[in-house]
Amino acid sequence: MARTLNIGMIGYGFMARAHSNAYSKVNHFFDVPYRPVLKAVCARDEAKAKAFAATWGYESVETDWRKLVARKDIDAVDICVPNNLHREIALAAAAAGKAILCEKPLAMNSDEGAQMAAAVEAAGVANMVWYNYRRIPAVTLAKKLIDEGRLGRVFHYRAVFLQDWTISADLPQGGTALWRLDVAAAGSGVTGDLLAHCIDTALWLNGGIDRVTAMTETFVKERKHNLTGKVEPVGIDDACAFLARFKNGSLATFESTRYARGHKALYTLEINGDRASIQWNLHDLHRLSYFDHRDEGTLRGWRSIHVTDGDHPYMGRWWVPGLQIGYEHSFVHQLADFLDGLANDQAASPTFRDALETQKVCDAVLESGRTAQWVAVG
Amino acid sequence: MARTLNIGMIGYGFMARAHSNAYSKVNHFFDVPYRPVLKAVCARDEAKAKAFAATWGYESVETDWRKLVARKDIDAVDICVPNNLHREIALAAAAAGKAILCEKPLAMNSDEGAQMAAAVEAAGVANMVWYNYRRIPAVTLAKKLIDEGRLGRVFHYRAVFLQDWTISADLPQGGTALWRLDVAAAGSGVTGDLLAHCIDTALWLNGGIDRVTAMTETFVKERKHNLTGKVEPVGIDDACAFLARFKNGSLATFESTRYARGHKALYTLEINGDRASIQWNLHDLHRLSYFDHRDEGTLRGWRSIHVTDGDHPYMGRWWVPGLQIGYEHSFVHQLADFLDGLANDQAASPTFRDALETQKVCDAVLESGRTAQWVAVG
Amino acid sequence: MARTLNIGMIGYGFMARAHSNAYSKVNHFFDVPYRPVLKAVCARDEAKAKAFAATWGYESVETDWRKLVARKDIDAVDICVPNNLHREIALAAAAAGKAILCEKPLAMNSDEGAQMAAAVEAAGVANMVWYNYRRIPAVTLAKKLIDEGRLGRVFHYRAVFLQDWTISADLPQGGTALWRLDVAAAGSGVTGDLLAHCIDTALWLNGGIDRVTAMTETFVKERKHNLTGKVEPVGIDDACAFLARFKNGSLATFESTRYARGHKALYTLEINGDRASIQWNLHDLHRLSYFDHRDEGTLRGWRSIHVTDGDHPYMGRWWVPGLQIGYEHSFVHQLADFLDGLANDQAASPTFRDALETQKVCDAVLESGRTAQWVAVG
Amino acid sequence: MARTLNIGMIGYGFMARAHSNAYSKVNHFFDVPYRPVLKAVCARDEAKAKAFAATWGYESVETDWRKLVARKDIDAVDICVPNNLHREIALAAAAAGKAILCEKPLAMNSDEGAQMAAAVEAAGVANMVWYNYRRIPAVTLAKKLIDEGRLGRVFHYRAVFLQDWTISADLPQGGTALWRLDVAAAGSGVTGDLLAHCIDTALWLNGGIDRVTAMTETFVKERKHNLTGKVEPVGIDDACAFLARFKNGSLATFESTRYARGHKALYTLEINGDRASIQWNLHDLHRLSYFDHRDEGTLRGWRSIHVTDGDHPYMGRWWVPGLQIGYEHSFVHQLADFLDGLANDQAASPTFRDALETQKVCDAVLESGRTAQWVAVG
Repeated sequence: MARTLNIGMIGYGFMARAHSNAYSKVNHFFDVPYRPVLKAVCARDEAKAKAFAATWGYESVETDWRKLVARKDIDAVDICVPNNLHREIALAAAAAGKAILCEKPLAMNSDEGAQMAAAVEAAGVANMVWYNYRRIPAVTLAKKLIDEGRLGRVFHYRAVFLQDWTISADLPQGGTALWRLDVAAAGSGVTGDLLAHCIDTALWLNGGIDRVTAMTETFVKERKHNLTGKVEPVGIDDACAFLARFKNGSLATFESTRYARGHKALYTLEINGDRASIQWNLHDLHRLSYFDHRDEGTLRGWRSIHVTDGDHPYMGRWWVPGLQIGYEHSFVHQLADFLDGLANDQAASPTFRDALETQKVCDAVLESGRTAQWVAVG
Repeated sequence: MARTLNIGMIGYGFMARAHSNAYSKVNHFFDVPYRPVLKAVCARDEAKAKAFAATWGYESVETDWRKLVARKDIDAVDICVPNNLHREIALAAAAAGKAILCEKPLAMNSDEGAQMAAAVEAAGVANMVWYNYRRIPAVTLAKKLIDEGRLGRVFHYRAVFLQDWTISADLPQGGTALWRLDVAAAGSGVTGDLLAHCIDTALWLNGGIDRVTAMTETFVKERKHNLTGKVEPVGIDDACAFLARFKNGSLATFESTRYARGHKALYTLEINGDRASIQWNLHDLHRLSYFDHRDEGTLRGWRSIHVTDGDHPYMGRWWVPGLQIGYEHSFVHQLADFLDGLANDQAASPTFRDALETQKVCDAVLESGRTAQWVAVG
Repeated sequence: MARTLNIGMIGYGFMARAHSNAYSKVNHFFDVPYRPVLKAVCARDEAKAKAFAATWGYESVETDWRKLVARKDIDAVDICVPNNLHREIALAAAAAGKAILCEKPLAMNSDEGAQMAAAVEAAGVANMVWYNYRRIPAVTLAKKLIDEGRLGRVFHYRAVFLQDWTISADLPQGGTALWRLDVAAAGSGVTGDLLAHCIDTALWLNGGIDRVTAMTETFVKERKHNLTGKVEPVGIDDACAFLARFKNGSLATFESTRYARGHKALYTLEINGDRASIQWNLHDLHRLSYFDHRDEGTLRGWRSIHVTDGDHPYMGRWWVPGLQIGYEHSFVHQLADFLDGLANDQAASPTFRDALETQKVCDAVLESGRTAQWVAVG
Repeated sequence: MARTLNIGMIGYGFMARAHSNAYSKVNHFFDVPYRPVLKAVCARDEAKAKAFAATWGYESVETDWRKLVARKDIDAVDICVPNNLHREIALAAAAAGKAILCEKPLAMNSDEGAQMAAAVEAAGVANMVWYNYRRIPAVTLAKKLIDEGRLGRVFHYRAVFLQDWTISADLPQGGTALWRLDVAAAGSGVTGDLLAHCIDTALWLNGGIDRVTAMTETFVKERKHNLTGKVEPVGIDDACAFLARFKNGSLATFESTRYARGHKALYTLEINGDRASIQWNLHDLHRLSYFDHRDEGTLRGWRSIHVTDGDHPYMGRWWVPGLQIGYEHSFVHQLADFLDGLANDQAASPTFRDALETQKVCDAVLESGRTAQWVAVG
C-alpha cells in the first residue's frame, strides 16, 4: 500500500499546473510506493492561491512560503517560482528537512546552485530538478541506445531550441506573466530558459562539456516594464548560440532564440556516432529518428520510430501502440521515478548536483558571450 | 460551483481507464458545470473491480451491472463492455432514468442501435457515444474550416484505419482481452471497431452517405478460442474496404485492416474541395495539413499546422504553443462538452441517434461485403 | 562500339520531348550497345515539326506518319500521339518491320491492344510501352525487394494518382493541348491516363488482378470543345476508384482523380506484407519507405531510404550519394534497358503483351463503372 | 539563331561530367543566344581524355592545359581540376582572352582568388564560378521571396552541410579520386568543399558576413596517401562549425562535416525573419518550406511548396507540375544564365569577384579555427 507524501507547492503558474497534474495522475498509471497528497499551495496573492487550490484540490493555502516550508505536515516542497527565489527557498526547505522538487533552471547562476547542492546534501534531503525532457519516452529510448553503445564513437552533437513569441517589440517585460524577460527575476534569457534544457539533455546523453564559445544578442533593446510601468533596457539574451567541445572529443553546436518565426517550442537534438545516429524534436515528441549504419547497405535509411509500444520506456503504463501521449506525461514519469527512488534511497536524476553541471555550462556560455573568448566550463 | 455527477462505470478494461482518466482530469482543466464523482465500478470479477476502484478512486464496486444501474446514487452510466452487451444495459439504464455514455460502436447492428436510440429518447435521458476522435483538436479544427465553407464543393473523401496487431495466426480469439476477434462479442471485425470511427468522422465532416460497395476478408480463417479452448472459425472481418457516394456528390474510399504491417493505429483522412483540402492522421494527431488554393500561386503548399495554440479548439485549456497533448485528451474534451451540454440541455454529439447513422453505414458495408452488390444506406 | 539505331518520332508534344531527351542522354551515362540517332520527326504541322527538329537535332521532318513509317532509314518508330492513333500506326510500323516504342496507354481498349500485341509478335519486331515509372530507382528497388521475398505474404496493395488541374469548369476539352479531356482522342479519362500507370506498376509488383468493382464520375459535365468551338458533353471519367482482388489473395484499393486540390501529380503506392511493407510516391520519387518487421522490436520504424547510392538501381550511372535525379531519368533508364534488350534479343518490359494486361484491367474498371457490378478481368 | 560557343574543358572527373551534361542539354530546354560546342577536353592521361571525349562528343583532346588555353578555336575554358590548379589556369586563360567557367571554390585562398578576380577584370573576359546551388529552383525562389521583402528583418540564418563518407579510417587520401582529402590539392577540407557552398548561398540571400568564430577538427589524424603510398598526416579539416554575425545584424550558425552518419549530402538552410521564415534542404531539393506569419492565426503552418510549377523559377522549361528535376539541372540553369548574360554583357553570378567574398569568409573561418579567436572577414 502506497504511503502518502504531502506536497507543499510554492507557485501557481504554468509549472505549478504541470506538476500538480503529475501529482494527481501518477497513481492512476504507475505502481509507485508513494501517493502524493496535495497538502498546501502557496502564493502571495491569497485569492489566487485559493483559486488554484480549488481547481487542483489542495487542502490548504499559504501566502508566505516560509510558513509553508515550516509546516510539519509537509513532506516535500515543490518550487515553481521565478529563478531569483529558488536559492532562498531551497536553503530553507533543506534546513527544514523537506524533500525538494525544484523547477529548472536550478538557480540564477552556478554560485547559487553550488550553495543549493551543498545544502541539500548536508541536510540529506531528497532533491530533484524538473528537467522533464529526459522522461519523454523517445528521449529516454535515445539514452538507452547510447548506453548500449549503439552509436559508437560520437563525432557530433547539435541542439536548437527555437521559439518566436517575443518578436513583437510591444511585448512588455516583467511581472507575473512575463518575468522570463526580466533579467532580475530570470537571471538570463534563452540561455537559462531554453538552452538549459538542451544542455541538461546533452550532459545526460553525451557526457561533460569541456569548453565553449558563444554569441548572444538582445534584438529588442528596450521594453516597457510591467512592474515600473516605464520603458527599461532589456537585460536578457534574446538569442544565444555556442560551439562546444565535449570531453569525449565530440563537437557540438547549440542555439536558442525566441525570434525564430514559425517555431513555437522546437527543441531538436541530433547525435552522430560512427555506427548510428539519432534525432528527436519536441514538436513531434513521440517519434525517435534512428539511422543504423549496420543495416544492410541498400536499405539504410532514417527510421521514424513511433515510440508508443508497450516495451518502449514508460509506455506500458499508458494506452496501446499508436496512441500517443504528450508533454504533460514527462512530468508524471519524472515524478514516478522520484517516488520510486524515494523508497529505494536512490535519487532520481537530475539531482541538484547534476543540475549544477548545467548551470556551470550556462555560466560559461554567458561569460563567453560577454568576452568573445572560449571559456572552460567551471 | 460545479454540481456533482455520480458516475457508474461498467467495465474495467482499456476504455474504462480512458474514461476514468477523463472524469479525473476534466475539472482540473475545464470550467464545466458538473464535477464527476466516481461512485461505482462494475465487473463480474469482484477482485478486478476492487483493483480498478482502488487505482481510480471509485467509491464502491458492483459485480452485477443491473444492480449498478438500479442504484439511486448513480446519475450516469458509462458502458465500457463488449458490443454485445451495449443494448441490454442501455435499455435498462434508460428505463432507470440514467444519463448514458456508451463506448462505440453503439451496438451490434442498426436494429439494436435503433432500439437504443428510441429508448433514450423515450426516457428523455442524456446520451452520448464515445466517438472521441471528433474532439482531437486538429479534427475539430477541420470541422470548423468545413463549416466556414473554406473547402468549397467537396469532390473526394478518403479514410483508412490501418493496424497490424493480428497478423500472427497464433493469436487466439475471444475472452477478456481478445473479444474484438470474437464475432459473438464484437458483431464484426474492423468494420465496427475501426471503420466505425472513420465513418463517424466522415458523417460529421461531410454529411450523409448514400450508398456503398464493399469487400471484406478474413485472412486467418481459424484461431484458437479463449473461451472454448478449441480452434474455431474466425467470424469477423480482418479487413474491409469500400467505395461510397456521399449525398453531397462527393466520392469516397474507406479501408481498414489489422494486417497492414508497419501501422499501429494509423487513422488518416483527407478531404478535397475545390477551394481547399485537408489531411489528418492519428499517428501525428496534433497536426492538421491544409492546402488553400487561394494562397498566392507560386507559394501554395500544404501547411503543417501544429494545433497547439491557445486559439485552437480546446487548446487554451492546456499548455502553451508547441507543447502537445495526446490521445487521452480527446476523451476529456468530449466529457467537457457533455457536461456543458447537460447544463444547457444541449446534447453533445454524437448522441445515440447520431451514432445510429454510423451503424447503418456499417450494416450496409457488411451486407455489400456479403452480396458483392452496391447497397443503399438504410 | 555502339551501333546506331535510327529513330523516327511521331509527335512533338510533352512525351516526344521526354523521349527525345532520353535518346540524347542515354549514351552519356549508360554503356549500351546502341546509339540512337534522331533521324526524323513527324507532325501534321510542318512548322511545328521543323521547330521540334531544330530544338532536338532531328535530321529531317515528315508531315505524314505513313511516310515516316515507310522510310528505309528508320529503325524504330516512337509513337507519341493521342491514344486513338496508336493502333493504326503500330500496325503499320509492325508491318514495316520497325521496332516500336509506344507511349502509354497501349491503346483505346483491350481489343485494339490485342491486335497490336498480335501484330508485333507476328512481325517479330521489338516493342515496348513507355510505362516509365517502373524505372524510377526507388520503384525498381521495391521490385527487387519483393522478388527477394522480403515482404512475405502480401495482404494489401493501395495506390492513388491524384491531380488537380481540371477543376476549373472554364477549361476547354480537345485539340492539341487538351486531347486528354476529349473521349474521342483519349478513350477514357483518368483511368487510361493515370490509373493505367498504377495498374502497370501493380501488375509488375504484385501479379495479376482477378476482379474489380469501380465507381467513376464526371464532375464537370460539359466543356467547350476546342475543335468544334461548342460546349459539348464531357465523355471522360474525371475520377475513378476501384476495389480489386489480386490473384495472390491480396486486397487492393485504387483511386485516381484530377479533382484532388493540392496534388499536382501525386502517385503513391503502398504494399503490406506479413514481413515488411513499402511505400513510395512520385512527389518525392527518390525516396523509398520501408518497414521491416524483423527489425528489433523497440527500434522498428519506417525507414526513409534516399535512393541515391551507387548500388541502388541505375544510380551508379549518375552522380554521388545524396544527389538526386528526377522524372526525366526514368525514360533514360527504360531506353537503356530497351537498347540492352535489343542486343540480347531480350525484350524490355513492358512489351505490348505486358501492357495489354493493364488494358484489360482498365476495360474491366470502366465496365464496372458503367454496370455497378464486380467484373472479372478479361 | 544561336551563335556557337566553343568550350575547352579541363578535367574529366565528376564535375566535368556535370558541366558537359549542361552543355549538351541547355539548348534542348532553354532558348539561349549561344550553342555550346564541345571542342576539346584536356587531361594529362590521353586515354582518359579520349574516353571522356568519346562519351560526351568532344571533338578533340589535349594533354597539356596550356595548349588548350592557347587554342584559337576555344572561346571558353571550363576549369574542373583540383583547387590547387585553379589560379594558374585562370590567369593563363584570362591572358588568352577566354571566357572562364571555374568550378568552386574559386581558389586555395583569398590571395589567389584576388589575383584571379583582378586578372579576369583586367582582361575583360566573362567569368563565373559554378556555385550551382543558387540555381536550384527552390533556392532561386527563396532569393526572390527575400528580395521582395517577405521575410522582413532577418534575425537568424543557419546552415549545415552534412556527409558521412570519410568515417572509415581505411579510406586513403590523395590522387585522382580522393584529392579532396589531400590538403596540398584541396587547400582545406569541408570548409572549402562544403561550407563554401553554404557561404555562397548565404552571402547571396542574406548579404555580407562581418565576423566569425570557428572550431575545426580532424577526426582521423593519419591516412595512407595514394601518391606516396605512405601513411601521412591528414592536413584537412574533417569538420568545421562557426558562429557568424551578418552585416544586417542577423546571427548565424554554420556547420559542416563528413562524419555525420546517416547524411549523404544534406545541405540545409533556414532563415528566420520577423514576417516569414524559409527552409530548404538538398536531399529534397525541389521543396521549399515557407512559414508566413501574416497567414491567418489558427491556420499558420509551414508550407511545403513543391517547386515544380511552370511559374516557379526555371521550371517552365522542363516538365509539368509535380514532376521534378534533380541535381544536374542546377548546372543547366547556371549555364543558361551565363549564356544569356554573355549576349547582354551582363555577368551571371557568381563572378570571380563574387566568389572571392566566399573565399574571404573561408579564410577567416580557418584562421579562427587555428587561433580560437573571433576573426573579422576580409
